[in-house]
Amino acid sequence: MSEPRMVEVRRKILKENDLLARSLRERFRSAGVQVISLVSSPGSGKTTLLERLLTDLGREYRVAALVGDLATENDAARLARSGAPVKQITTGTICHLDAGMIDRALSDWRLEDLDFLFIENVGNLVCPSSFDLGENLRVVLVSTTEGEDKPLKYPTIFNTADAAVVTKLDLADAVAFDLAALTRNIQGVRPGMPILQVSTRIGRGIAELELFLVSQRTAQAAARAV
Amino acid sequence: MSEPRMVEVRRKILKENDLLARSLRERFRSAGVQVISLVSSPGSGKTTLLERLLTDLGREYRVAALVGDLATENDAARLARSGAPVKQITTGTICHLDAGMIDRALSDWRLEDLDFLFIENVGNLVCPSSFDLGENLRVVLVSTTEGEDKPLKYPTIFNTADAAVVTKLDLADAVAFDLAALTRNIQGVRPGMPILQVSTRIGRGIAELELFLVSQRTAQAAARAV
Repeated sequence: MSEPRMVEVRRKILKENDLLARSLRERFRSAGVQVISLVSSPGSGKTTLLERLLTDLGREYRVAALVGDLATENDAARLARSGAPVKQITTGTICHLDAGMIDRALSDWRLEDLDFLFIENVGNLVCPSSFDLGENLRVVLVSTTEGEDKPLKYPTIFNTADAAVVTKLDLADAVAFDLAALTRNIQGVRPGMPILQVSTRIGRGIAELELFLVSQRTAQAAARAV
Repeated sequence: MSEPRMVEVRRKILKENDLLARSLRERFRSAGVQVISLVSSPGSGKTTLLERLLTDLGREYRVAALVGDLATENDAARLARSGAPVKQITTGTICHLDAGMIDRALSDWRLEDLDFLFIENVGNLVCPSSFDLGENLRVVLVSTTEGEDKPLKYPTIFNTADAAVVTKLDLADAVAFDLAALTRNIQGVRPGMPILQVSTRIGRGIAELELFLVSQRTAQAAARAV
């Protein structure tokens, strides 16, 4: 297999994805729905956090979620306990969601009926970075237990995200987590990126994160109205 | 981009990898070196565990390591503190090592001078599963903080591994880790796979793991002698 041939195939796939993502973004915009995607390593706490966000934001807003995994419908079942509409996307052996999967999953949902749509990507710090899903906000989660070096080792996923959320704050002391080092490493690859901190276990930082997401939606709605 | 074309490209790459992995395995066999690869999510503790294994096993055996990351030479620098020869493989945007990278990294090492060669793959629970590196033993790490459902969501990586190591045992209580559930999920996708448990922080289970790796080497050497 020649390398240039592979690169060419990859480029073509990415280009098709970007075109579809652009049309999704336009549909989201005109429907007035704020679309937030979550990316992280497996086990960083995406689903646990999302369950909480759907429950909390669902009291005031119309929320829904798409959730990607290679296999199982477990996460959709978990998230559906929040009462929000949830759809599982199983990718088989593919290590990321793409715009086509989002497009197909949304085919029988009315976007106008939603205020927030969350997309939980496959747990992976590499593959999802290259695939625009048309989201308004990409949030990268990194847990205190993963090590402060992750932004340096996986720069692209941090570079393509709009905000970072540090999860599992309740374990920070147990693992001698160094927030200053993580912050420095995040800012090194993505200067200026907002960094929030949460623990779903002890309920810390959740309100601040929700406020951040709501304010982002308000700001984007204001920008659209101009 | 047509799906069948992409599948065909992918199949060809995998086939070339498998042929090269087969020749690597034959070289490892004739040199008498036991090759152990480590796969896991980012932040499961591969490098920390490997640093310990190189230090401990290095007292009695000739050990070396190759370590894969998208970016940075940090892990090689960390592991080199053990005194063992260590080489970093940086993959750029590629989410796994492949047999060609291993082959090139080994070009100036004499395999006959080694008893154990460790290969630390890129932190990823998806991509590495499809790429045989010619290793004798593939070990999948899963930390207590990642959630017990990972074998169900990433079945292929567990299915292609030969042993599982549960890491960060010292955090088990803090996260209400359920060993029985994880064991059930591992055995569900890979019946009979040995499961070991360690904490590098409090030094638990390390001796048992090292004994396991040494016994695997002895058993494979015996099989070769038959």
